Amino acid sequence: MRYELYYWPSIQGRGEFIRLALEEAGADYVDVARGRESRRSGVAGMMALMESSRIRQLPFAPPFLRAGKLIIAQTANILMYLGGRHALAPAGEPGRLWAHQLQLTIADLVQEVHDTHHPISSDLYYEDQRKEARQRGETFRKSRMPKYLGYFERVVSANAAGKGYLIGARLTYPDLSLFQIVEGLRYAFPRAMQRQEKKIPRIVALRDRVAERPRIAAYLASKRRIAFNEDGIFRRYPELDG
Amino acid sequence: MRYELYYWPSIQGRGEFIRLALEEAGADYVDVARGRESRRSGVAGMMALMESSRIRQLPFAPPFLRAGKLIIAQTANILMYLGGRHALAPAGEPGRLWAHQLQLTIADLVQEVHDTHHPISSDLYYEDQRKEARQRGETFRKSRMPKYLGYFERVVSANAAGKGYLIGARLTYPDLSLFQIVEGLRYAFPRAMQRQEKKIPRIVALRDRVAERPRIAAYLASKRRIAFNEDGIFRRYPELDG
Repeated sequence: MRYELYYWPSIQGRGEFIRLALEEAGADYVDVARGRESRRSGVAGMMALMESSRIRQLPFAPPFLRAGKLIIAQTANILMYLGGRHALAPAGEPGRLWAHQLQLTIADLVQEVHDTHHPISSDLYYEDQRKEARQRGETFRKSRMPKYLGYFERVVSANAAGKGYLIGARLTYPDLSLFQIVEGLRYAFPRAMQRQEKKIPRIVALRDRVAERPRIAAYLASKRRIAFNEDGIFRRYPELDG
Repeated sequence: MRYELYYWPSIQGRGEFIRLALEEAGADYVDVARGRESRRSGVAGMMALMESSRIRQLPFAPPFLRAGKLIIAQTANILMYLGGRHALAPAGEPGRLWAHQLQLTIADLVQEVHDTHHPISSDLYYEDQRKEARQRGETFRKSRMPKYLGYFERVVSANAAGKGYLIGARLTYPDLSLFQIVEGLRYAFPRAMQRQEKKIPRIVALRDRVAERPRIAAYLASKRRIAFNEDGIFRRYPELDG
C-alpha cells in the first residue's frame, strides 16, 4: 500500500514528524501537495480532499494521511498508527500509551514554539505581533524550553533499558520527533540552545544517534528534506533568541 | 480496580474531561489531590508522585491517572485508555483513531481557550498580560471559535448513523468533551457564544443529550462537580467577550 501524506509543500512544519517516521520505516509514500497541481495533487488536490462532501471523517487541518480507505489526521494520531505498523512503537498497550504520552508532550512543545512567533493570532503576520512575540520568546527560552528539555533528559535517563532512547532498548517514533525538536530549536534559537545543550547530553546523543541511521541520513541529504524557513514552526528571528 | 485521578483540586481544567468519562462509565475512582493532605493524598501526594524517582514513566504535568501498575498522562491519552475499557469508544481501530483525532482537535481548542487569558506566559498573572489577552480574545471569538465549532457541527452532520453524536449511533468520549466545551464557552464567552449557538444547533442538541444522561446529571448536581472559576481554563473575564 502506498501512503498519501497531505501537508503544506513548502515547510517542514508538523508534517515533518510524519515524514521522518515514513522515511525511517522505508515506507512507500507520496507527499501529495508537493506534486503537480491538479484535482488530485498539489495544494489544490489537498484542499479539494479536505472540503469534499464525500469524506465523512473530515480533518480539521493538515497534516493528514490516507492509508487505503482510512484518512487519519492529527500528527500524534498518525504517528501512533504508523508506529504500530512499522515496528516504531512498543508492542504492548502500556508501552504504546507511554510512547503516545511522550509524543503528545512533544506536540505541546511544538505548539509553544509556534506561539513564540504568533502569540496573538495565526491570522496575522509575525510583523504585526512582533512586540508580543519578543515577550513570549523570552518566556519560552527562559522557562518553557528548559522545562521541556529537562523533562525529556530525565526520561532518557530513567529508561531502565539504558540504551539512550526514550523507551526501551531501541528506536521508537518519539525518538524521531525529539531529533526534529533538537534540529528545530538549533535553527530557531541557536544562542539559547547552545547554552541549553550542556544540560541535556543524553538528548544531544540521542539526536546524533537518529541522524546517523542510514535511512534518516539519506533522507536528510535528499531533496525530500525541505530546509527550515520562516514560514514553518521553527523560525529564525534573532530578536526572539535574546 | 479503583482508578486514582491526579489533578489540581480547585479547578475543572483539563482534569474535567477525564472526570466526565469516569462518571459516565460509573467507574470507581478517587480524585487524589482533593483528599486530605498527606504523603499519598492531596496536592502534596500528587507532587510527591510526580517527583518520585521510583516512577520511570514520568508525567510532564497533571492530569494523570493511575490504573493498577500503569500511570498514564496527557488528557487525550487517558481518555483513549478509558474509552476502550468502558465502552466509550468505537470497537475497531478505524473508529478508535477517529475518536482520538476528534479528541486531539478538542485539545487544540482547549489550549487556544487557555491562551486567550495567557497569551504571553503561563508564569505571569492574567493582570500582567491583559492588553495582549484582549487582542487574543478577539481573534479567538471572531476566527478560531467559529472555525472549531463549525467543524464539529459538520462532523455531527456528516455522521452517517445520524443519531446526533459525533461518531456512530451512540455516545463516545469525545461527545462528553464536546459537552464540556459548550459549558465552558458559555461560561467564559457568554455573549459570543449566544451568537454562535444559532449556527451550531446539532452541537447544542448534543450538549443537551449529554446533560440528560442519568450519571452525568447526577454528577453535575453533586459536590464532585467543581464550579467554573477564574483559575481554570475557562474564565469569565468580560473584556475578553467583546
